[in-house]
Amino acid sequence: MDGRHRRHRLTAIAGLTLLVAACELTPRTPTLDQPPNIVIITADDMGYGDLGSYGHPNIRTPHLDRMAAEGQRWTNFYAQAPVCSPSRAALLTGRVHVRSGMFGRRQGVFFPDSRSGLPDEEVTLAEALGELGYATGIVGKWHLGHLPQYLPTRHGFDSWYGIPYSNDMDQNLPEGLTNRSALFEPEIDYWQVPLIRNETEFERPTDQTTLTRRYTEEAVAFIEANRDGPFLLYLPHSMPHVPLFASDEFREQSTAGIYGDVIEEIDWSVGQVIAALDRAGVSERTLVVFTSDNGPWLSFQTHGGTSGLLRGGKGTTFEGGMRVPGIFWWPGTIEPGVTQEIGSAMDLFTTAIALAGGQVPDDRPIDGVDLSAVLFDEGPSPRDVMAYYRLGELYAFRQGRYKVHFVTEGRYGLPPERTDHDTPLLFDLDQDPSERFDVAAERPEAFDAVVAAAERYRANMTFAEPLFDLRGGS
Amino acid sequence: MDGRHRRHRLTAIAGLTLLVAACELTPRTPTLDQPPNIVIITADDMGYGDLGSYGHPNIRTPHLDRMAAEGQRWTNFYAQAPVCSPSRAALLTGRVHVRSGMFGRRQGVFFPDSRSGLPDEEVTLAEALGELGYATGIVGKWHLGHLPQYLPTRHGFDSWYGIPYSNDMDQNLPEGLTNRSALFEPEIDYWQVPLIRNETEFERPTDQTTLTRRYTEEAVAFIEANRDGPFLLYLPHSMPHVPLFASDEFREQSTAGIYGDVIEEIDWSVGQVIAALDRAGVSERTLVVFTSDNGPWLSFQTHGGTSGLLRGGKGTTFEGGMRVPGIFWWPGTIEPGVTQEIGSAMDLFTTAIALAGGQVPDDRPIDGVDLSAVLFDEGPSPRDVMAYYRLGELYAFRQGRYKVHFVTEGRYGLPPERTDHDTPLLFDLDQDPSERFDVAAERPEAFDAVVAAAERYRANMTFAEPLFDLRGGS
Repeated sequence: MDGRHRRHRLTAIAGLTLLVAACELTPRTPTLDQPPNIVIITADDMGYGDLGSYGHPNIRTPHLDRMAAEGQRWTNFYAQAPVCSPSRAALLTGRVHVRSGMFGRRQGVFFPDSRSGLPDEEVTLAEALGELGYATGIVGKWHLGHLPQYLPTRHGFDSWYGIPYSNDMDQNLPEGLTNRSALFEPEIDYWQVPLIRNETEFERPTDQTTLTRRYTEEAVAFIEANRDGPFLLYLPHSMPHVPLFASDEFREQSTAGIYGDVIEEIDWSVGQVIAALDRAGVSERTLVVFTSDNGPWLSFQTHGGTSGLLRGGKGTTFEGGMRVPGIFWWPGTIEPGVTQEIGSAMDLFTTAIALAGGQVPDDRPIDGVDLSAVLFDEGPSPRDVMAYYRLGELYAFRQGRYKVHFVTEGRYGLPPERTDHDTPLLFDLDQDPSERFDVAAERPEAFDAVVAAAERYRANMTFAEPLFDLRGGS
Repeated sequence: MDGRHRRHRLTAIAGLTLLVAACELTPRTPTLDQPPNIVIITADDMGYGDLGSYGHPNIRTPHLDRMAAEGQRWTNFYAQAPVCSPSRAALLTGRVHVRSGMFGRRQGVFFPDSRSGLPDEEVTLAEALGELGYATGIVGKWHLGHLPQYLPTRHGFDSWYGIPYSNDMDQNLPEGLTNRSALFEPEIDYWQVPLIRNETEFERPTDQTTLTRRYTEEAVAFIEANRDGPFLLYLPHSMPHVPLFASDEFREQSTAGIYGDVIEEIDWSVGQVIAALDRAGVSERTLVVFTSDNGPWLSFQTHGGTSGLLRGGKGTTFEGGMRVPGIFWWPGTIEPGVTQEIGSAMDLFTTAIALAGGQVPDDRPIDGVDLSAVLFDEGPSPRDVMAYYRLGELYAFRQGRYKVHFVTEGRYGLPPERTDHDTPLLFDLDQDPSERFDVAAERPEAFDAVVAAAERYRANMTFAEPLFDLRGGS
């Protein structure tokens, strides 16, 4: 496990960390008089390479870069699925999405005519923390069932302000306009997505141009109202999913075009949240996590993001589909630096409950692990594997540095180009993060080990009935 | 020029910059009692995406990341050529390499049987600064002619310690071993590259395993000997050009394999140089620049680097061939942040001479511009264009955000796959840094403007006779 040891060591920015530490507090395992607040902010379809601190040359993200510099920047952090609904289900339940039926054999996500949603039996992070006395709020996109019985308020959240599914759904296009064309030159009323407070729709179509700003105002108000804490704030932004909309203050401000405008507004939003925590005097008892629900939607040219050096994007089980930015911030508690440890969004469930002093449910399999040891620089991540599912099928599997591909698909939003590999592909993600060189033939021991680990994982996985295929009158 | 204005604004890491500034000094236009020291450190074949601060997930570069955080990180900084010799010629002369004959119609660089070198008439940075009273030292790879009359000591450097050409030249392979195989499993004596002090060879073959460390020791000794300054230290590392060698202390330390080991040793070396400047008490009157001579040599799989989100690598005129890391550090003087301004290695010539209070030669065209305004956050870069030459031919041209390709070649080190574009390709580098979407047809005004600018540039360029083709007895 020499690789584990080398991976475990945090890379601090030489010298600078000492400077920051000297000006602020020194990290420590937390000893608070009450459990910490948890803030989870996600972007939608934002890629691994879309932030300044992850290498983008001209999208400006100073607030996220500050979070990264003062906190921990993870470079092997994963969404649990390459598309929206299953990824969000896993984040909120700590379970691989197939266990909760959050998949389909034909459909990858929920749609406005879906007849199902996240099952009531699932225990969400909001329910788990709510039982521990947390105030729980969600501001943003849900996408785990739009029918009343599936809404966030039925899954443990005290309050919700946001949209029920993706911002490109509920099409209402002028005759002759294709959806693809509409996405590049969007008007607000091309999509009739409703905006909902708790369980009441109050705007339709949603004015998406002001949505990021309004989410931010709601999030700030939630923090101010719950400053005595503890609280869980889940802030899943609707952007940068196409169609792209930015506020007037951000439009045409980024050299990267509308996609850059949108990311820069999300970055501003993160800055506002941090500022609100500072104003409320709770920064030092709040863990803030920023990540994305999956990789960039490469089908939309400059209206999609970039996965940087990673291969593929949204919808694929190459790294670009699921490896995303993962930034953890908790001044005075988190050890600043860059970590190569492996983490997944579903680990946020287990980590948050552990930090809150609770226990994860013991009546069902929980896949999330507690990442605290890495956050406090006390040990390696308990996570050594990642499973890459698509339409309920295990396409790929990572154990340590190695990843095996049983099935690959080149692109999302285009004909599937599915390839079943009689001999699976093997990539060394540490030496070859771009998945360019198949080393199956030259490293038979590694190949056998990771294939065997994948088979064990596959054999132990439990599947619920797939719920995404239940649509319309069918 | 709205793009220029937006590009010009420095992106500081929100909050953090203030912290650093509060702990250190505030930036200012320099008012020194003597001209500043200039330290230029280059890596060889290191790609845009190979540093932590430029987005690499697991190569650890804490010292360079510190330089970037305390100084300026440029995201549109270019080597002047996609291969070694011409790039170095431009850096040292401030001139596009074709003006000095540093090209060939068949050969891209100098070889051990080359019969030529950098012409005596050229004015190098060492000569220009030497005339202004600078001590001038080079530690590292020269590659501008190995015959006695072309060595660094004949081009203005007081001292030299290093190798005359690339570390994969002067082959001495066991029978039956191909060069390519040798490069992946290298032994010291497979290449008979000499190690030279001033004009005297003292080791052959060079023990490349200790070369980065020995360069570093020489550089530190130079700083200590010249602490009363001013001095020019040019430190062109031989690594990470294949064959890859690292010291025992760095071997098998990086999860990224030998390539990562080599980059991490260079990062250590940068840290040693900074520490030596600190110890000598001259950090606040020293400009340190770190860059690469061209993009990553993608032909060598995991023994080559990555250009991150950029297309192509070494030898190509896509961005990955020439856009490289560019980090400027001068505590208390340089305004910290990230800049999108355009700069080139040949601008270091003009900038350094301006900072030293001198004048660039007025008897010949000088292509380098003074980047001081950006460094001091006083204005935009005077550079708005980049010309991409290959074998003496203008393959591509950038003006502002747009780049036009007249000729493209896919890969280097493989059959050329040259494509002449009857209608040139047009890329919007701000919105599409990966050069994926040709917008020539949809943006005719931009197309016409940049093609016309390229034609003017081409018409005004002066060519010397190409000197790289003069080899052996031919």
